[in-house]
Amino acid sequence: MQFTSEAVESLVEHLTRLPTIGRKSAHRLAAYILKMPREEVVELSKALVAVKDKVKYCRICYNVSDSDLCGICTSPKRDRSLICVVEESNDVMALERTNEFRGVYHVLGGVISPLDGIGPEDLHVRELVARVQPVSEEEAGEGMEEPTPVKEIILAMNPNVEGDTTAYYLTQLIKPFGIQVSRIARGLPIGGDLEYADEATLSRALMGRVKL
Amino acid sequence: MQFTSEAVESLVEHLTRLPTIGRKSAHRLAAYILKMPREEVVELSKALVAVKDKVKYCRICYNVSDSDLCGICTSPKRDRSLICVVEESNDVMALERTNEFRGVYHVLGGVISPLDGIGPEDLHVRELVARVQPVSEEEAGEGMEEPTPVKEIILAMNPNVEGDTTAYYLTQLIKPFGIQVSRIARGLPIGGDLEYADEATLSRALMGRVKL
Repeated sequence: MQFTSEAVESLVEHLTRLPTIGRKSAHRLAAYILKMPREEVVELSKALVAVKDKVKYCRICYNVSDSDLCGICTSPKRDRSLICVVEESNDVMALERTNEFRGVYHVLGGVISPLDGIGPEDLHVRELVARVQPVSEEEAGEGMEEPTPVKEIILAMNPNVEGDTTAYYLTQLIKPFGIQVSRIARGLPIGGDLEYADEATLSRALMGRVKL
Repeated sequence: MQFTSEAVESLVEHLTRLPTIGRKSAHRLAAYILKMPREEVVELSKALVAVKDKVKYCRICYNVSDSDLCGICTSPKRDRSLICVVEESNDVMALERTNEFRGVYHVLGGVISPLDGIGPEDLHVRELVARVQPVSEEEAGEGMEEPTPVKEIILAMNPNVEGDTTAYYLTQLIKPFGIQVSRIARGLPIGGDLEYADEATLSRALMGRVKL
């Protein structure tokens, strides 16, 4: 035992299980929490459990939401003919921060990763196909989403092997519906330095060069 | 609102109030917590509150403890004539990891910092003086700590202005008792590089040179 208190030891143990928190951070956090007013700690602890108890997933796009449908899917300002497919809810937030995208989303809930035993059936792939399929008459009557035909699917998976695999799989799946499928550009990050870019990024930036 | 769920937003808000957790880490943590089994989240939330409810402070050294006296102060293997004075409980743990120190500790609970309005009376300074004072007869009878006379006080404050101020103050306070007062060495960190050391560290390392 490193601390002379089991309660502190147990908290450190729990904190280190979380991502981005190493042993040193956990110690610093525990020391900080020890000095925090009790009410604030109780609030934090409640916020943790609330996330598990209150958060639902939008039944259209599977983004996190407090109700059955998320704020983006119900917004009248959004273009329902344009669906951006992402891995996780965090990615929706990252894209929303750009203030560039006016379409709607589809959260897969992961990527195809045979090594981790994750196949298309573990993701919201079937639901994506249902969204791009020509709307049947019965659906058009009951759904809250207007039966806007989907014109384009933007694939915004992470630029790695799993993301590439998933993007390839989805392209094969969606193309037959006659819908345009695109993937967000990969290349040098803005503010990045050619000299320090890794080979894969640089070769991708070369391949994806844009005519001026 | 960046997330489409208020519960997630609130958790992120709470997490970013903690040290070492920025907005990005908080988002990543929230996403991870969303995927964690509910029981684990409940456990983590309980561990947080437990730290506030169960942790006491050792009434000899003010280190965190589950009981009235900490494991170090009650250990028969510890040399009670040697007291290492530190700022926080975390520092005790850091020193314990070295497996070098066989004495006991005294946790001040902070440092003298006039800018933050923290003076000696806000720290466990009086209690430190009580420990080094020659044992009176009544105390010798009731205390669990054996009345071993203190031979040396090692000051292990952080090497910064506040740490220096506190160390200076304590030295003036303790010296009159005829007890040896020392401070842990400051200089180049092991594995460090002279070229990259800052001026203050380097000049301190020069001043504190040791004869070979």
